Amino acid sequence: MRVLILGADGYLGWPTCMYFSERGHEVIGVDNYFRRNAAVELDCESLTPTPNLIQRTKIWEEITGKKISIHTGDITNYEFLLSIFKEYNPDTVIHYAEQPSAPYSMINRDKAAFTLQNNLITTLNILYAVKEVNPDCHIIKLGTMGEYGTPNIDIEEGWLEIEHKNRKDKFLFPRQAGSLYHTTKIQDTDMLWFYVRTWGLRVTDLMQGPVYGLSTDESDRDPRLISIFNYDEIFGTVLNRFIVQAVAGYPLTVYGKGNQTRGFLNLKDTMQCVYLSAGQSAEKGQLRIFNQMTEPFSINQLAEKVKTIGDKLGYSVEINRIENPRVEKEEHYYNVHYTGLIDLGLKPHYLTDEVLEGFFTITDKYRDRINKDAFFRGIQWK
Amino acid sequence: MRVLILGADGYLGWPTCMYFSERGHEVIGVDNYFRRNAAVELDCESLTPTPNLIQRTKIWEEITGKKISIHTGDITNYEFLLSIFKEYNPDTVIHYAEQPSAPYSMINRDKAAFTLQNNLITTLNILYAVKEVNPDCHIIKLGTMGEYGTPNIDIEEGWLEIEHKNRKDKFLFPRQAGSLYHTTKIQDTDMLWFYVRTWGLRVTDLMQGPVYGLSTDESDRDPRLISIFNYDEIFGTVLNRFIVQAVAGYPLTVYGKGNQTRGFLNLKDTMQCVYLSAGQSAEKGQLRIFNQMTEPFSINQLAEKVKTIGDKLGYSVEINRIENPRVEKEEHYYNVHYTGLIDLGLKPHYLTDEVLEGFFTITDKYRDRINKDAFFRGIQWK
Repeated sequence: MRVLILGADGYLGWPTCMYFSERGHEVIGVDNYFRRNAAVELDCESLTPTPNLIQRTKIWEEITGKKISIHTGDITNYEFLLSIFKEYNPDTVIHYAEQPSAPYSMINRDKAAFTLQNNLITTLNILYAVKEVNPDCHIIKLGTMGEYGTPNIDIEEGWLEIEHKNRKDKFLFPRQAGSLYHTTKIQDTDMLWFYVRTWGLRVTDLMQGPVYGLSTDESDRDPRLISIFNYDEIFGTVLNRFIVQAVAGYPLTVYGKGNQTRGFLNLKDTMQCVYLSAGQSAEKGQLRIFNQMTEPFSINQLAEKVKTIGDKLGYSVEINRIENPRVEKEEHYYNVHYTGLIDLGLKPHYLTDEVLEGFFTITDKYRDRINKDAFFRGIQWK
Repeated sequence: MRVLILGADGYLGWPTCMYFSERGHEVIGVDNYFRRNAAVELDCESLTPTPNLIQRTKIWEEITGKKISIHTGDITNYEFLLSIFKEYNPDTVIHYAEQPSAPYSMINRDKAAFTLQNNLITTLNILYAVKEVNPDCHIIKLGTMGEYGTPNIDIEEGWLEIEHKNRKDKFLFPRQAGSLYHTTKIQDTDMLWFYVRTWGLRVTDLMQGPVYGLSTDESDRDPRLISIFNYDEIFGTVLNRFIVQAVAGYPLTVYGKGNQTRGFLNLKDTMQCVYLSAGQSAEKGQLRIFNQMTEPFSINQLAEKVKTIGDKLGYSVEINRIENPRVEKEEHYYNVHYTGLIDLGLKPHYLTDEVLEGFFTITDKYRDRINKDAFFRGIQWK
């Protein structure tokens, strides 16, 4: 398979490049280093030192003999993206090239506008490039479980059959998200669904929960291959932040009551999910949606787990319940259905004590690079 | 009331300026003349000759003694929009400043990207300006009945209570639109709903059907006050196009089977609906949605009505069923609920034979300006 990975420098992007390359596929990676630069500007850089993509592909080639092609550029520039599609004519395109942070999108108008424009124009450009070059190319788009919000009914896998006044129809599951960033993902889904219906494209939209972890089989071969890893308030997901806080001796920042519940997954399982989706394409004219998570946890449950394992390892972990800077329900119903990827072959890596211990161990290697100022600045939703 | 009207040069914008001004309100109109310029570029200019806004406000003042303030600029420029909000601190802002054409949004990637960016960034900017200057300012946003598409269940007024597996919640009515333009209106609704919930703003989102007509009480006072009026494939709504085609002796262009059904309303009723909404604001934290239509018709029904009246008036009208350039259902269920605006006080102007005759009479005055090349060029959805 020839796979084009957009957002190849990111937390998920680079491990995905290696995962496909390792399995014999031709990989083309594209990034504009937005995330890396934004982390510099906002003083919240990666815990891990990461060479640029060209350097990392050299290291990858030294170790494995496999080549990954890298192009640097911004895919909101349609001519640039189209030239890549024309040069490589990929079978599959994986779209990670979005501004991925909820707090970033809430900082001010300019960052909200950037998020809106970047996330929607990148998606539009991919749709047009696929239509123009090869309408059979399978688009795999990273959505988010956050699109659904926390409704008072079960969250089905993307779609819902509705019976109303004795008539029936099937619709996208109703979505109402908790940040402008998450809202752009709803808007993406609306747009993908329109063009899938109209042009007969093949799209898989992965409603992914927060990802945790720092290790994949590929990156474990050489520390220089490790992914970008954010642990700050802006770009860091909650469990990643808690682990680094625990290692740093900084009280875990639980927002509000901590009963907010979300569906989580291990970085290794993101790799599996995307790979399984690529191997079994959506049909022509199908918007296939999977709920990409393996276990639900409340924030309190995660904090307790980190404390238990951290204390056992000698870190003496404290938990600090702080006023919630976000607008979100702190008590809510949450029952998600997520069998689609299991049916495709996913073998989950659950959050066991061993996994948490391993996560502490690898994190501890980078303890000198921790910037405590990045843990919490209190970006307000209001 | 101090009312800011964005998109003041448009088919609805200018009549709305006069409608509020006539009733004693202070009106500030803003436009960047996008629609006017696009119609020049695409050779589909207004049937009616329309002086620019500064000239029209002079004429309006001569006739009524009432002033309307005009600012020319692009509200995707946040600094510009914010300066207007700071200067006037409006009680109500009416947002007509979107790219309003479905075919325009389907021409190519650049026009799709423009539509996406213009429509979403204008809405985002209004939300931020309201939050920054006066969070109590009531936002009235023009949505479209096209957001709902043609579902197989009754279309409720914006919201739907869903019971699923013995649990209940209330959601935005599921939306799936028939063009990229209509999809941007769904995306707007998603975004308005997010910020309304988060910031406690007051928003009325009007799901308006296709508007017809060329006459309002204000514009009838002087032909120089008449609105911009498009009758072409790109910017002209269907009944407006049929009337001009009939006057020009050009066969009415019915797309496909013609059983596509939509909810229509008279231009005079748009004025009433917007005015009634402004007079009775949405609550803080409420996204209030009305279905803004007065009668459903199929395309065939409209064509038959235009033929009947046109023939009676001596125009000898033909109907031409042409291959549908759009992707849309030509046979579908359509049952819309639209009582909210009636409850607010709307007195509809229905599409009677007299109304149609009056529409022919006023259109005929401009027959020398008809450009038959604009009627149909066949912009393809695929």
